[in-house]
Amino acid sequence: MSRLALASLLAVLMAPAIAAPANDAATLNRVRDHAMQSDWAYQRLEDLTDLVGPRLSGSAGAAAAVEQVAATLRALGARVTLQPVKVPHWVRGEEKAELVEYVGRPAGLSQRVALTALGGSGATPAAGLTAALLVLNNFDELEARKAEVKGRIVLFNVPFDQWQAERGLAGPAYGHGAGYRFMGPRRAAELGAAAALVRSVGGADFRLPHTGATGLAPEQRIPAAAVSTEDALLMARLARRGPLAMHLTLTPQTLPDADSFNVIADWPGTDKADEVVLVSGHLDSWDLGTGAHDDGTGIAGALGVLHTLRELGLHGRRTIRMVAWMNEENGGRGAQAYQTAFGAQMGKHVGAIESDGGGGHPFGLMASVSARAEKLFKPLQAALQPIGAGVFRREERLQTGDLHLMEDAGVPSFEPLIDTSTYFHYHHTAADTFDKVSPDALRRHVAVMASLAWFMANMDETPGRVPALAD
Amino acid sequence: MSRLALASLLAVLMAPAIAAPANDAATLNRVRDHAMQSDWAYQRLEDLTDLVGPRLSGSAGAAAAVEQVAATLRALGARVTLQPVKVPHWVRGEEKAELVEYVGRPAGLSQRVALTALGGSGATPAAGLTAALLVLNNFDELEARKAEVKGRIVLFNVPFDQWQAERGLAGPAYGHGAGYRFMGPRRAAELGAAAALVRSVGGADFRLPHTGATGLAPEQRIPAAAVSTEDALLMARLARRGPLAMHLTLTPQTLPDADSFNVIADWPGTDKADEVVLVSGHLDSWDLGTGAHDDGTGIAGALGVLHTLRELGLHGRRTIRMVAWMNEENGGRGAQAYQTAFGAQMGKHVGAIESDGGGGHPFGLMASVSARAEKLFKPLQAALQPIGAGVFRREERLQTGDLHLMEDAGVPSFEPLIDTSTYFHYHHTAADTFDKVSPDALRRHVAVMASLAWFMANMDETPGRVPALAD
Repeated sequence: MSRLALASLLAVLMAPAIAAPANDAATLNRVRDHAMQSDWAYQRLEDLTDLVGPRLSGSAGAAAAVEQVAATLRALGARVTLQPVKVPHWVRGEEKAELVEYVGRPAGLSQRVALTALGGSGATPAAGLTAALLVLNNFDELEARKAEVKGRIVLFNVPFDQWQAERGLAGPAYGHGAGYRFMGPRRAAELGAAAALVRSVGGADFRLPHTGATGLAPEQRIPAAAVSTEDALLMARLARRGPLAMHLTLTPQTLPDADSFNVIADWPGTDKADEVVLVSGHLDSWDLGTGAHDDGTGIAGALGVLHTLRELGLHGRRTIRMVAWMNEENGGRGAQAYQTAFGAQMGKHVGAIESDGGGGHPFGLMASVSARAEKLFKPLQAALQPIGAGVFRREERLQTGDLHLMEDAGVPSFEPLIDTSTYFHYHHTAADTFDKVSPDALRRHVAVMASLAWFMANMDETPGRVPALAD
Repeated sequence: MSRLALASLLAVLMAPAIAAPANDAATLNRVRDHAMQSDWAYQRLEDLTDLVGPRLSGSAGAAAAVEQVAATLRALGARVTLQPVKVPHWVRGEEKAELVEYVGRPAGLSQRVALTALGGSGATPAAGLTAALLVLNNFDELEARKAEVKGRIVLFNVPFDQWQAERGLAGPAYGHGAGYRFMGPRRAAELGAAAALVRSVGGADFRLPHTGATGLAPEQRIPAAAVSTEDALLMARLARRGPLAMHLTLTPQTLPDADSFNVIADWPGTDKADEVVLVSGHLDSWDLGTGAHDDGTGIAGALGVLHTLRELGLHGRRTIRMVAWMNEENGGRGAQAYQTAFGAQMGKHVGAIESDGGGGHPFGLMASVSARAEKLFKPLQAALQPIGAGVFRREERLQTGDLHLMEDAGVPSFEPLIDTSTYFHYHHTAADTFDKVSPDALRRHVAVMASLAWFMANMDETPGRVPALAD
């Protein structure tokens, strides 16, 4: 063997150990450009949603999703660990409702109400229950009429502010409605309600009920459901005519906690392999749709990060760790389990990314970093600007479903900044399906996540811990 | 009593018998303007959809709708007749489906398919049936693969052309899809299919199945259903991976024909009271939604015509006859019964209006009149132009659900020209509900129908019989 050949061989064999490529613009651009030209992640989204479909924690779908994603990551050559997580196991049952008394009702008729149980809902008797409805527009009205709640079905008829969502404020619009979804049934239960209904939290009008978690404590599990916007409006109109009663049947079950897993996959770093850049989405979904936007695109995006680096033969200085979180939707047990296992290593977590805003067009990034650290990301912004994703919006906390515990520990957190103006049309409904995600948007999504992950894996100066935004 | 007082009294007493107001612009404008300022018809739409709701032929809802509308018309002072009509009585049962075999299926998993039985569908066994799926894009493919049909479930995966609908051609877009809905199951049945599925005929993407009539003969009633667009796409994708099988449960029933009625209400004319201007919508609806667009707005619009004339104290020279047709959706028996009873009087039917294009914004009128007759409507166009509804579009035939038999008899037919670009988002779905109809659009709708009816009731020269368009 010639000295030249020997040197070449050594270079190949030692590649993981020698210095990684510098955090230069050219390499960053290669990462971006590869992502922008690949539909590999989109194909993984198709596999996840078409072959597995819904994957609520504890379900066979969730278990199949763990296997599918772990197999994909192993095939990429990542170091894969399945981290055990005990998850809530709530199972939807029969669900139907009709308005059986109202002023002007023709004899023998009733009006069907489209609804779906909220995660954590209790059950009615198998034959259902009948009770008078109390239609309320907000918690002030609940307070004012609390003497009327006992034995009734309370409806929180709180509209979703689609116009706010169109203005780039889908988060607050959602938060307002989701607050009623989470706390409304609880407060109704405390006042002795027979059941609680919320108007679906979403901005479209296709008679779709939107499920989601509700905050009922185990000892107060009254039946709780989301009605479609149309049906909330119907009940509000009929309530203006006079007394209104519903026959409601919901038979969900809360089973013992089930065994599940976070899927953790390391793409090893070189000289700083003990430091971690975490890139993630959540693998569980609600059970009505196939969880394409929520959060198949987060999983596909994170997978796409590792795929891009594999295809380009790149390892960063730091380890890039993909986490496919389990149980974001109704418990957050995956994030808790990670914190239990890795809490002592939070100082080594340079940054954590979660994508959980759907597969809309990405404009850039949201980041919980200190003001001092913002300037460190200028080269990244420069790399993302050509694909229209150069916005770097600093926020005090992102509070994504799975990163808030890391935020508590001071880890800088990141999330793609997505056009979410129509996200809540589909979120938590049967219509959250593969066809809703554009391949183009998903390519951009991967480009943003991969560029960010690669950039942080190779930064000289890291953003440091995150104190308050004012810092 | 003074001579003046006597004259006044006589004028009042003889009002119906003396010459009606001339067909002058001022009166026509009063009709238009009253309609444009009244929400009475909108309130009737609310009553029909909120209190009665779905009203498929033969159902208790249809019977209640007959009573409600007849009572409303009696209260207006119209001469009301209930014309008996024997109607089909098809009742939806359980309906569910899942994909139980496909390439890449994790053990134990299946994928739920959102679907709804088509009117006239046969039933599967109570426990369902399982069969391989054959996904076809058109009838040419059916012909080419007819040897594969026997024992299989055939899916006609025919997309709805929403872009065509946006261009003002919703009718042809619907016609293309509805052709597959009507003939697809029939042709599949002839080839021995176990069941037939069609992709829903509609342009939105909210996983809503759209029902509708299918053309199965009694002896070939295989199970037939519409799947949502999303599920058709899913099946097409999975079929590209390899063999695909569905477990399908549909348990509708076809009961003996039921007794029902057309509601006929005359607003008597003066010197030409034996001549009729017919104004109509259909009172039956599909069973999934509350039939607001289809065709609650037609009923509300026609009611609004009589209400406008009542409020203004107007009777035309000719009789204005409102018909609330029964059974437009799945049989057309109401129109047949009318023809049987009044066929000999078609020569006295000066014109017939049906509104069955939903409650969108009206731009004007479509008319099946001879070219010679078009100019007669110039004064009407002038009255409607100020509300943006002056378009008068001549068509050879309108072929609305209930007027085609009258068209066969040469009666000029008319229909409001409506913006239907989103009509097929909701048509025949659970989401066809009251909230979808704008009060403003409905006021305009009434204005168009009332102006046209009033105008025709008082024309000196009538449009005459309708030969071919070229005439």
